[in-house]
Amino acid sequence: MDWLEQSTENCSVQRTLDVIGDKWTIQVIREAFHGVRRFDQMRDHIGVSDSVLSSRLRKLVDEGILETAEYRHPGSRTRKEYKLTASGKDLYPVVITMLKWGDTHRPDPAGPPIEVAHAGCGGAIDVELRCAKGHRLTAPREAVTTSGPGARPIARSSAGTGS
Amino acid sequence: MDWLEQSTENCSVQRTLDVIGDKWTIQVIREAFHGVRRFDQMRDHIGVSDSVLSSRLRKLVDEGILETAEYRHPGSRTRKEYKLTASGKDLYPVVITMLKWGDTHRPDPAGPPIEVAHAGCGGAIDVELRCAKGHRLTAPREAVTTSGPGARPIARSSAGTGS
Repeated sequence: MDWLEQSTENCSVQRTLDVIGDKWTIQVIREAFHGVRRFDQMRDHIGVSDSVLSSRLRKLVDEGILETAEYRHPGSRTRKEYKLTASGKDLYPVVITMLKWGDTHRPDPAGPPIEVAHAGCGGAIDVELRCAKGHRLTAPREAVTTSGPGARPIARSSAGTGS
Repeated sequence: MDWLEQSTENCSVQRTLDVIGDKWTIQVIREAFHGVRRFDQMRDHIGVSDSVLSSRLRKLVDEGILETAEYRHPGSRTRKEYKLTASGKDLYPVVITMLKWGDTHRPDPAGPPIEVAHAGCGGAIDVELRCAKGHRLTAPREAVTTSGPGARPIARSSAGTGS
């Protein structure tokens, strides 16, 4: 199916964007990967209003990206904390690809504000595109994109003869 | 520097989001990776209004993600087309990580709508996180995040005694 004849309504990029396609949402996810779990800490660190943060957290819980747990320090009231679920943790490569692009194309003159290294050996982490046979891709032109089994034709909005 | 003491103002994830952190913008970039270059084709395929598409294209050109070229079919007027720049092409891993997350966590019952393969061998393409020494990461906990040379402390907004 030609790309322009294929509907974008079930596009997997778009389905991901439906979950995280919002600046605040990605920042909440970034905080979660940094181990920040409390509402007030996220709010103060991101610099976001209570209402925006509440709505984003609610959506991320509804979508199964974050889950809540209760915790309680002695002498204070019970609070909720937010943790990444397994599908939330799978967003790690999305965040890392954004981090790397920013480091490269919108660099801070002083250097990267955050460095990510392999816990085991200390080697700097980067993102690679590889095929099932282990070849590493160095440019988009080395990839071929074709319609998959889920491809749907565009539903034409005109009241014409169909097909 | 502790993460919660570090300013997010020069965060590389956020700097990337400042460029692409918008649903329409990512869809325009997706179209560009599919080789769609004309305004009317993008508009019809995404299903976006002229004014929204114009504003997103203008921003992407201003940010150096897309560049314009003129083309002219015999007998018709000159039109502009939009092509990814080198820094635009470097967004490919960002789009692929989103595609893969969507394929996995928001699957279409019929299967993936799009398949991406290595042009050389036909092997399916996936995203890997690897360290400089070649170790592959399988979970976020295998990574360690530390402040880099560009880390800035948070500017406290209170008119207090400082530090």
